[in-house]
Amino acid sequence: MPDIEIGLSKKARRTYTLDDVALVPSRRTRDRRDVDTRWRIDAFTFETPLIAAPMDSVMSPATAIALGKLGGLGVINLEGLWTRYEDPQPYLDEITAISLTDKVSATRRMQEIYSEPIKPELITARLHEIREAGVTVAGSLTPPNTQEFYETVVKAGVDLFVIRGATVSAEHVSSQTEPLDLKKFIYELDVPVLVGGVAGYTPALHLMRTGAAGVLVGFGGGSSSTNKRALGIQAAMATALADVAAARSRYLDESGGRYVHVIADGELGRAGDLVKALALGADALMIGAPLARAAEAPGQGLFWGNEAHSSTFPRGSRTELGTVGTLEEVLYGPSHRVDGTANIVGAIRQAMAACGFTDLKEFQRSEVVLSGFNTF
Amino acid sequence: MPDIEIGLSKKARRTYTLDDVALVPSRRTRDRRDVDTRWRIDAFTFETPLIAAPMDSVMSPATAIALGKLGGLGVINLEGLWTRYEDPQPYLDEITAISLTDKVSATRRMQEIYSEPIKPELITARLHEIREAGVTVAGSLTPPNTQEFYETVVKAGVDLFVIRGATVSAEHVSSQTEPLDLKKFIYELDVPVLVGGVAGYTPALHLMRTGAAGVLVGFGGGSSSTNKRALGIQAAMATALADVAAARSRYLDESGGRYVHVIADGELGRAGDLVKALALGADALMIGAPLARAAEAPGQGLFWGNEAHSSTFPRGSRTELGTVGTLEEVLYGPSHRVDGTANIVGAIRQAMAACGFTDLKEFQRSEVVLSGFNTF
Amino acid sequence: MPDIEIGLSKKARRTYTLDDVALVPSRRTRDRRDVDTRWRIDAFTFETPLIAAPMDSVMSPATAIALGKLGGLGVINLEGLWTRYEDPQPYLDEITAISLTDKVSATRRMQEIYSEPIKPELITARLHEIREAGVTVAGSLTPPNTQEFYETVVKAGVDLFVIRGATVSAEHVSSQTEPLDLKKFIYELDVPVLVGGVAGYTPALHLMRTGAAGVLVGFGGGSSSTNKRALGIQAAMATALADVAAARSRYLDESGGRYVHVIADGELGRAGDLVKALALGADALMIGAPLARAAEAPGQGLFWGNEAHSSTFPRGSRTELGTVGTLEEVLYGPSHRVDGTANIVGAIRQAMAACGFTDLKEFQRSEVVLSGFNTF
Amino acid sequence: MPDIEIGLSKKARRTYTLDDVALVPSRRTRDRRDVDTRWRIDAFTFETPLIAAPMDSVMSPATAIALGKLGGLGVINLEGLWTRYEDPQPYLDEITAISLTDKVSATRRMQEIYSEPIKPELITARLHEIREAGVTVAGSLTPPNTQEFYETVVKAGVDLFVIRGATVSAEHVSSQTEPLDLKKFIYELDVPVLVGGVAGYTPALHLMRTGAAGVLVGFGGGSSSTNKRALGIQAAMATALADVAAARSRYLDESGGRYVHVIADGELGRAGDLVKALALGADALMIGAPLARAAEAPGQGLFWGNEAHSSTFPRGSRTELGTVGTLEEVLYGPSHRVDGTANIVGAIRQAMAACGFTDLKEFQRSEVVLSGFNTF
Repeated sequence: MPDIEIGLSKKARRTYTLDDVALVPSRRTRDRRDVDTRWRIDAFTFETPLIAAPMDSVMSPATAIALGKLGGLGVINLEGLWTRYEDPQPYLDEITAISLTDKVSATRRMQEIYSEPIKPELITARLHEIREAGVTVAGSLTPPNTQEFYETVVKAGVDLFVIRGATVSAEHVSSQTEPLDLKKFIYELDVPVLVGGVAGYTPALHLMRTGAAGVLVGFGGGSSSTNKRALGIQAAMATALADVAAARSRYLDESGGRYVHVIADGELGRAGDLVKALALGADALMIGAPLARAAEAPGQGLFWGNEAHSSTFPRGSRTELGTVGTLEEVLYGPSHRVDGTANIVGAIRQAMAACGFTDLKEFQRSEVVLSGFNTF
Repeated sequence: MPDIEIGLSKKARRTYTLDDVALVPSRRTRDRRDVDTRWRIDAFTFETPLIAAPMDSVMSPATAIALGKLGGLGVINLEGLWTRYEDPQPYLDEITAISLTDKVSATRRMQEIYSEPIKPELITARLHEIREAGVTVAGSLTPPNTQEFYETVVKAGVDLFVIRGATVSAEHVSSQTEPLDLKKFIYELDVPVLVGGVAGYTPALHLMRTGAAGVLVGFGGGSSSTNKRALGIQAAMATALADVAAARSRYLDESGGRYVHVIADGELGRAGDLVKALALGADALMIGAPLARAAEAPGQGLFWGNEAHSSTFPRGSRTELGTVGTLEEVLYGPSHRVDGTANIVGAIRQAMAACGFTDLKEFQRSEVVLSGFNTF
Repeated sequence: MPDIEIGLSKKARRTYTLDDVALVPSRRTRDRRDVDTRWRIDAFTFETPLIAAPMDSVMSPATAIALGKLGGLGVINLEGLWTRYEDPQPYLDEITAISLTDKVSATRRMQEIYSEPIKPELITARLHEIREAGVTVAGSLTPPNTQEFYETVVKAGVDLFVIRGATVSAEHVSSQTEPLDLKKFIYELDVPVLVGGVAGYTPALHLMRTGAAGVLVGFGGGSSSTNKRALGIQAAMATALADVAAARSRYLDESGGRYVHVIADGELGRAGDLVKALALGADALMIGAPLARAAEAPGQGLFWGNEAHSSTFPRGSRTELGTVGTLEEVLYGPSHRVDGTANIVGAIRQAMAACGFTDLKEFQRSEVVLSGFNTF
Repeated sequence: MPDIEIGLSKKARRTYTLDDVALVPSRRTRDRRDVDTRWRIDAFTFETPLIAAPMDSVMSPATAIALGKLGGLGVINLEGLWTRYEDPQPYLDEITAISLTDKVSATRRMQEIYSEPIKPELITARLHEIREAGVTVAGSLTPPNTQEFYETVVKAGVDLFVIRGATVSAEHVSSQTEPLDLKKFIYELDVPVLVGGVAGYTPALHLMRTGAAGVLVGFGGGSSSTNKRALGIQAAMATALADVAAARSRYLDESGGRYVHVIADGELGRAGDLVKALALGADALMIGAPLARAAEAPGQGLFWGNEAHSSTFPRGSRTELGTVGTLEEVLYGPSHRVDGTANIVGAIRQAMAACGFTDLKEFQRSEVVLSGFNTF
């Protein structure tokens, strides 16, 4: 399949980011009011296919509840400030107060703050708080912490369980520890599991075979990560989505009808990116930056991911996104922003209508083009 | 036709913007004075193939008249400030006075100003004013407003009727309202209709079959729009023109000789862009930015489009273009500008002569190249 | 031959600039001291293949003489300040004194200064001055002025005659005036003629058939021109040279051995560009910017071309290049500059040696590569 | 093999830089702790495949020793300040004190400082100092100086001998001097030789046939050089590595089992670049910039190469990289930097583990992709 010769001993495949592609309207247009943006997974139905990225700058218990009430799925990071500290607010204030240009101090202080141990009783408390608000309850762990804390999580009660790391494979090999057996774990668990990041047809297919309800496409790190520069690794999202969507078809066939959801998780900064990810095959979108721009976001206009405070190899820094309005305005407007940061659900509706679609699943068949070299 | 694999489940076609292409002279050169830039549509002949974009920052009744006298076609926006306010000048002054960096306030204030209802008697008055000046009369409406106001327009008298929206298709489907039946509407109307934006062979062909005299290629939004970032939608103009020109040939054949004009509407910032659009198949050019640089332009050096004040999803902001000279100097010089903003008709003449053409229709056969990656 | 589909009705060829390509050393290296950079045309031999672009910011009679003594070919612009004014220095001072940011005033003032008529007696005087210095004498005219002034030029005595315009074709068609018949003109003239700009195999072949000793590849305007933006025209130099070199072979064959020199004229800003142009097939290089950086240059650190003061359609502005050393240092060092602006002949020697060549004609067979997308 | 037509008389091959490519994880992941980064060449084993570039801003005897103790290979430049001056510190201080913007003065002063003759007794002293510290001893000369000084070097005692120049070929032809016969020289020498820069299959194969233990891929100049602009020469590293790795296979076969090491030498600025170079076939990496960021580096946060003070054709200038931590932190962390400048060995481990590899040789089979056009 790789067909471009890099040099005499190496071929490569060209991959594409969301920035490389665009949609083009076709012969039919639709009324925006006829567009249905509902997303159904397992027993749950959401008004919009929007899942919050479990990042401390994006999701607190309060914002998870607010997003749930507005028709999305809030996911709380069960390894973040809310499960390490009874009151995380002073730490959030401290992180956001460090000058943006002083990256080293910020990284160092975050590493310290996040070295506080995770407290099982806080996991329970945070999940209960969300449960009591009457919205769908979801929390995330990274693979290394899943074995230690999943029983706490399950006992506390979640509707959807998210396992999210930089790269999660169905086949993690270690001579040092017994790694998490995803297949066994998911089989025994009673709740649907969303798991990733993954990129590529084969690793996604293997992950689907573990029984996951959905796979997260990407590297578990959004626009603030520096994977390419620091690790040399990149999964261009347009290609990753189109590959994983192909794995979804294959698995649907081989499993005799099990539909595993494909969830884009990365490169989703503006409404236009969301639209393109859906057109490339995503069933739902795990978004960080768009929600970090809400007035309610814990990051207070700043955005950072979980990899930013890695003790061994930090790979992202705080990005200033600014605040554009309430969470409701970010999702549904009214918008006074012209850059795709407000009324993002309205943008999805408008784009689908302009391209002639009223249904998210059909929209995955939308025609895309590679846009010109010299455009932005 | 799409032939580039984005990922395993999606192919795409590469598209090209005007910036991606350039013209190259051939073996013959011509005398610039022999070049004929006349454009004929229906019963009308214009000295130049230049149509004003119906935007409030570009066209007032006065500039529509001035452009008509200088050999182009002025088109007045019949949903803009001139049909909402008896005296729009204070509102123009207000919009242009808001600091360029304060985009949110500008968008918000424009949304308020444009929420004033359209007044049928002002439609009539503005069109009469243009008619009395003795130039060709043309006005534009968006599809949603066409049904409500077209009778007012027709009664007031127009020579050319323009229906212009972001995406206009011959087949708009709605469960909410009875959409405008373009075919019936155009058939019953007595005046030639220019309609768009459209991009792509099939939607353009369908639009041609409605009986339109010309189709606008693009999205009804020029260089100030932010469609790609906000909606994920883009119609790269070079590809769009070459596609729609192919639809023109096909329709010419299937209709037994009806020639529908292809009008580029977007990406036309500098004289070089105008030249390229003509070489790629455009019969005429609907231009905004070049005319917004005239001293007479209502925008007073600023440029904004109709999508900038959308109440639901604004998608463009005021751009500072500056003023380069009188409208006559913009069109015919003398020029003291070296960047393709003055003497734009002279530039078309010079480029055609250098490439060996004296006639706009022949110039559509001009050879174009994809210019180098690292050039500007 | 054009093979990339821009859209359904238009194909294009991809073209390449010098920036797109690079040289790669091969299996053999050479001693730099063994490299021979001599260029021979007609009865003349030059130590280096460097021809000065006839621009007032680059060549005065004095710099033409200096370049000749240093082993290059000076060409004086016979339509510039030196043939319009007895003492052009005050005008040069005035042009260079206008603020760089005040482009409009500069263009306007240059248009005024260059509206002074050309004086035949000054043509004679300038050429005599160069002749007396004992170097090869060359002067340039544009095609429209060639008929009026060539007799003056020939009578004054030139060794090489240069006809240089934006686009010069062998077949200029006009209903207004009797255009210069290049074939007849060159045949009757007693001196070898260099003529251009030209780009492309066919127009170059036609120009070779007029009897020209050399063709200038480009548009008669260097890095300071704005042809692409203003006219939509571009001849990417790498492609243009490789095409015209093919025409040279063809004409060599069809003429039974007449070798017409291919002279790159454009995109030649730094030593690396000069190297690449030679590798792509140029026999000699007409350079402006590199010489404008000499302390002796009339432009005093500024650079502008003849199209910058066009009365109808000015297309270039003054660029600040700065002064890097004496003309001798620019050509032969010693160099304290690391950016390819000093010791440009040394750079050619070093690159040829690194790639294993000692002779300019062989160097045209050098392997080139398309360099990576993300490089500079 | 070259398959892209630049113009009618020239074809070219597309080449790729490290920036053009990226790694993508596959179906298996590994435990980072299982990753083995050891590099073995001849009788030597190093904990990491990192070789210091012999540049005065990077390597002093002290940093060579420190790197050796930390598991890498220090290489001292035997033509630099340490062999020209008994105490080079004042000169280093002077070079680093010149304002970064005053490039001409810096180049000029470096040219003066480096005009001091090389002293054989200092070569001996520096190598002895390293030997006494108990680490592997390696020093470098350029080809022109090898004949004059190699006996001094061998007598002083080195474990590995490095011959490094901009372009080193097995076949250097000169009519002026008797060039170094690499084959004879290496055969007679008792120590393994690393030699380069080289780029391309054929020149690398010829160099392998001289008996070299390893070849340096690149131009002997890192990120601070200006080869492309000044000489028109570029060896895009991704292509160069994949080509030279193919030559390694071929030579392994034709020699009946001699494995010549492929050492990337250039474009290696950040951890991600190191990862990619290994994946493209490098056995080891000669790095400058990453080590110049160590607190111990002689350049004190500035970085310059040997070509920066060339007396004839200087081609690089001092770049400010800043200091990110101790040499140990640069190699092994702990890291508070998110940009791939600290814990570079940790980054290699993490990337290999994420892509499913535990061994450097296997990692050369890693899948790479061409990343999207619009990414960074």
